[in-house]
Amino acid sequence: MTVRALIPFKPVNPKSRLSGVMNREEREAFARAMLDDVVAAIRGAGCTPLILSTVPFRYPGAETLVNAGGLNESLNEILPGLPGATLIIMSDLPLAIPETITRMLTTGANISVVPGRGGGTNAIFLKNPARFRADYYGGSFLKHLTVAEEFGATVEVIDSFRLSTDVDEVEDLVEVLIHGRGKSREYLASLGFALVAENGRVKVERAGMRG
Amino acid sequence: MTVRALIPFKPVNPKSRLSGVMNREEREAFARAMLDDVVAAIRGAGCTPLILSTVPFRYPGAETLVNAGGLNESLNEILPGLPGATLIIMSDLPLAIPETITRMLTTGANISVVPGRGGGTNAIFLKNPARFRADYYGGSFLKHLTVAEEFGATVEVIDSFRLSTDVDEVEDLVEVLIHGRGKSREYLASLGFALVAENGRVKVERAGMRG
Repeated sequence: MTVRALIPFKPVNPKSRLSGVMNREEREAFARAMLDDVVAAIRGAGCTPLILSTVPFRYPGAETLVNAGGLNESLNEILPGLPGATLIIMSDLPLAIPETITRMLTTGANISVVPGRGGGTNAIFLKNPARFRADYYGGSFLKHLTVAEEFGATVEVIDSFRLSTDVDEVEDLVEVLIHGRGKSREYLASLGFALVAENGRVKVERAGMRG
Repeated sequence: MTVRALIPFKPVNPKSRLSGVMNREEREAFARAMLDDVVAAIRGAGCTPLILSTVPFRYPGAETLVNAGGLNESLNEILPGLPGATLIIMSDLPLAIPETITRMLTTGANISVVPGRGGGTNAIFLKNPARFRADYYGGSFLKHLTVAEEFGATVEVIDSFRLSTDVDEVEDLVEVLIHGRGKSREYLASLGFALVAENGRVKVERAGMRG
């Protein structure tokens, strides 16, 4: 049986912190490109995507569910009904590659987890999802460690720059342009985003716009 | 023969972008604590430290050199004279642990490298340092890939959140408090730094001061 990968996704007006450099239509296309990269990575590692969308949404070849309530409520309703090992992975991880997902799936522990910058949980693999309780937002990484400890699960923290890099801010686009290999990077380039060196650092600029 | 680890270090008035939350003496002590964590990590992986300091500096049990000119000039003067495989690792990587260093040292390629956020080079392992040319600042990760390509070296990019996390900004302190296991975390705690949840995110605050 393949591992199911639950991917929360917000198709409408996503990534508001990028509003200064992309209009709404562009942010929606960019969020979709990032989702494509995540789906490609999890499929490359042998997982089956299950997209949990905030609104009705169709994705070619993937099952989708509408997450009408909050993320935690929806996940905690879905998880107990899932038949086997499950990955929960965010949709804004455009540097995801199959190798890193495989590192997660091959853990010897009950749970493997990749923290995001700032204390979030970017990806978590649960061999027994029924016992888990999702608690996203506000330092979810440490909270999820506590949840795991409470039910006696062993946890491996996977040390990955690629999966720790969630894209929210303009400065995060630098990472996509440097390290991206997929559709997100391609889409940014098509919009005119490029790297520029400034005062010994690298920044991103959009042609005709300051990034 | 053990691998030598070159560690550039600035003991005097370092980490100016932390000036809003630490005075100069504290920033110097914090930089030193981060250096201690890096030295412990490389020693744990079997490397011997060689500290390249901007001013005369003594470090217990480690050889030190004074880097009178710029970083690139000094490294490019030193590298050809080194007898064997060499690691160059920055001193502001308080999440470094021996396991990640070992991942670098056991590469099958001629060079392994860990990018920092924003396109820097946080650590680079050179089996043949004599042929390398350091080119730090301004997107050094991509420049170092080009240098390697020019002399036909194979390169493995090591995917590590821990080594990609260099600490420059106040928000980077969050990572030290969440993931740190060494002296840097301890020092921040001793100064009264702690994690606080705010609007679904985690920030750092210093007792009696806004972080």
